[in-house]
Amino acid sequence: MTRILLLGACAAVAVAPFATTGSIADDQTLRDDALALFEPIPESPDPAPDPAQVELGKALFFEPRLSEGHNISCNTCHNLGTGGADLASVSLGHRWQKGGRNSPTVLNATYNTAQFWDGRAADLTEQAGGPMVNPVEMGSTQQHVVEQLKGIPGYLPLFAAAFPKDPDPVNFANAEAAIAAFEQTLITPDSPFDRFLRGDDAAMTADQKEGLRAFIDQGCAACHNGINLGGNSYQPFGLVEKPDWAILPPGDKGRFEITRAEEDAYVFKVPTLRNIAVTPPYFHSGAVWDLSLAVDVMGTAQLGAALDAAQAASIVDFLDSLTGEMPQIVYPTLPPSTADTPRPQQ
Amino acid sequence: MTRILLLGACAAVAVAPFATTGSIADDQTLRDDALALFEPIPESPDPAPDPAQVELGKALFFEPRLSEGHNISCNTCHNLGTGGADLASVSLGHRWQKGGRNSPTVLNATYNTAQFWDGRAADLTEQAGGPMVNPVEMGSTQQHVVEQLKGIPGYLPLFAAAFPKDPDPVNFANAEAAIAAFEQTLITPDSPFDRFLRGDDAAMTADQKEGLRAFIDQGCAACHNGINLGGNSYQPFGLVEKPDWAILPPGDKGRFEITRAEEDAYVFKVPTLRNIAVTPPYFHSGAVWDLSLAVDVMGTAQLGAALDAAQAASIVDFLDSLTGEMPQIVYPTLPPSTADTPRPQQ
Repeated sequence: MTRILLLGACAAVAVAPFATTGSIADDQTLRDDALALFEPIPESPDPAPDPAQVELGKALFFEPRLSEGHNISCNTCHNLGTGGADLASVSLGHRWQKGGRNSPTVLNATYNTAQFWDGRAADLTEQAGGPMVNPVEMGSTQQHVVEQLKGIPGYLPLFAAAFPKDPDPVNFANAEAAIAAFEQTLITPDSPFDRFLRGDDAAMTADQKEGLRAFIDQGCAACHNGINLGGNSYQPFGLVEKPDWAILPPGDKGRFEITRAEEDAYVFKVPTLRNIAVTPPYFHSGAVWDLSLAVDVMGTAQLGAALDAAQAASIVDFLDSLTGEMPQIVYPTLPPSTADTPRPQQ
Repeated sequence: MTRILLLGACAAVAVAPFATTGSIADDQTLRDDALALFEPIPESPDPAPDPAQVELGKALFFEPRLSEGHNISCNTCHNLGTGGADLASVSLGHRWQKGGRNSPTVLNATYNTAQFWDGRAADLTEQAGGPMVNPVEMGSTQQHVVEQLKGIPGYLPLFAAAFPKDPDPVNFANAEAAIAAFEQTLITPDSPFDRFLRGDDAAMTADQKEGLRAFIDQGCAACHNGINLGGNSYQPFGLVEKPDWAILPPGDKGRFEITRAEEDAYVFKVPTLRNIAVTPPYFHSGAVWDLSLAVDVMGTAQLGAALDAAQAASIVDFLDSLTGEMPQIVYPTLPPSTADTPRPQQ
């Protein structure tokens, strides 16, 4: 397990006075400090995934017939209209069962170093198959997903084009790989923050720049760093002080469920903060709907310091600057069912 | 109630021998006969709905927060990826409750003279509000829908642009009107049948042309006529012979539930046959998944004559020619929730 525990060190850094002038020199210093920690999202996926796999993956991402009831697709809980998440504390799955944790955004997930809140999937390909076969999510099985896809004749040419060397291309691993290829395209470049990083002083407001300065100086960036401002390390939730049990439910020990190592109790993958302003509610529990409150909780739980109101407000302003351009997706026409296609189990 | 009961007369028309040559003269005769009964779909909506209303309506059509659980949108049951319907006998709604009847396609619904299987909504605007407040569908109320939309600040400018003369534009009637405006754009022109009607002899195969001839001569076109090959009249299901109760469940008396007139027992709006090949299962009950079987049921129930196998097969071929070009919809980015937005009731 990789852990970045620079937090104590960073929290001890003296807090710089807030920049109020927004002078060119101040902006360049802030940019230099930021570029040492963060990285802008490229304009297009790099490397570009295979177009035929992306096309197939897009169809599968919106395909409700991958669920046992034929009414839930990847897009149901990772809705591309609502920031790649579903604006609910936990998702509703097969037979209205509730999921265990808040649905993480699929946007920019390609930049996370592991997937799921506990990092149990190494990459998007490994992640993609999980919800399909989770009994409380899409409720199917690997075998039935393949039967289903083979029972929709129009999928065969799409799989064959995406996996031309595979003599039997309609299989679960290829479905996972295609979904992952599509998800590699779901990036949100050109946020005000990215444009600022690239040199546009006017891209962020003075309040947002103050927030970025506080975000760095207060120690938030010790964990929320890199291209995704998170998604690249694991941390105990409640490093300094455990938050309320409503926010950190005792029954969910996070990464401990995977590793069974005591040190991993209540350890979670640090989530990306990209598009955070449009993806409430917050935390793995989805218990906090107000971004200001989420920032306060982070201050006390992770930094051990109550942020003053002005700092917290400017950090929220900064977080607003992390909303990028949403991907433009033409809704796919899915291959039709036939009389022999396996039917929904409702 | 408008009823077209030409069926007996048409069924008595002598059956013309199947065209086998596909000569130019045969094609023109067939086209002339068809143009007396049918009409091609225009290339674009005419009249064109207001673009600002369409833009708002598109967002609302894909908006899960219109449902009580924030997980069901219009598109869930009228999925634009699967022919504007949901490939299920009946739809799954709020708290996994089953709907009463098969979800009719939203595609080309603008050409129906009334909406719902029983015609209880006069037009798309009146229809649009129904599912939102149906307890087994989206499970909300008119009041809560308005509270919800007012609680998402980004909707106000969209409503204001769509309804510039309205001093309080975020209201239920405007939401219905905007969804209807978007649905007016959901047409599927350029099917092989439309191209044939417009003069392209090569647009339909010889089998499809035989099927069109049989469709006219056997009397199917007595009810399935007009621009939508249906959607413009009411008919008793089982006009000549009641089908199996599994197909015509006794508890659902159709239009009788609206009018309470005995003559309306088991009367339903004749559905459009456009895109029928991609929208199984069939009938208001959704009990039949095989289009060939659906054609057979129509023969015995409505025409009082078992179609011979070749006729039935050619009619199925003809129905395949009714699949048009699906609308190209860029998936909308929905206005974000805030800390004050009403939350899902799960």
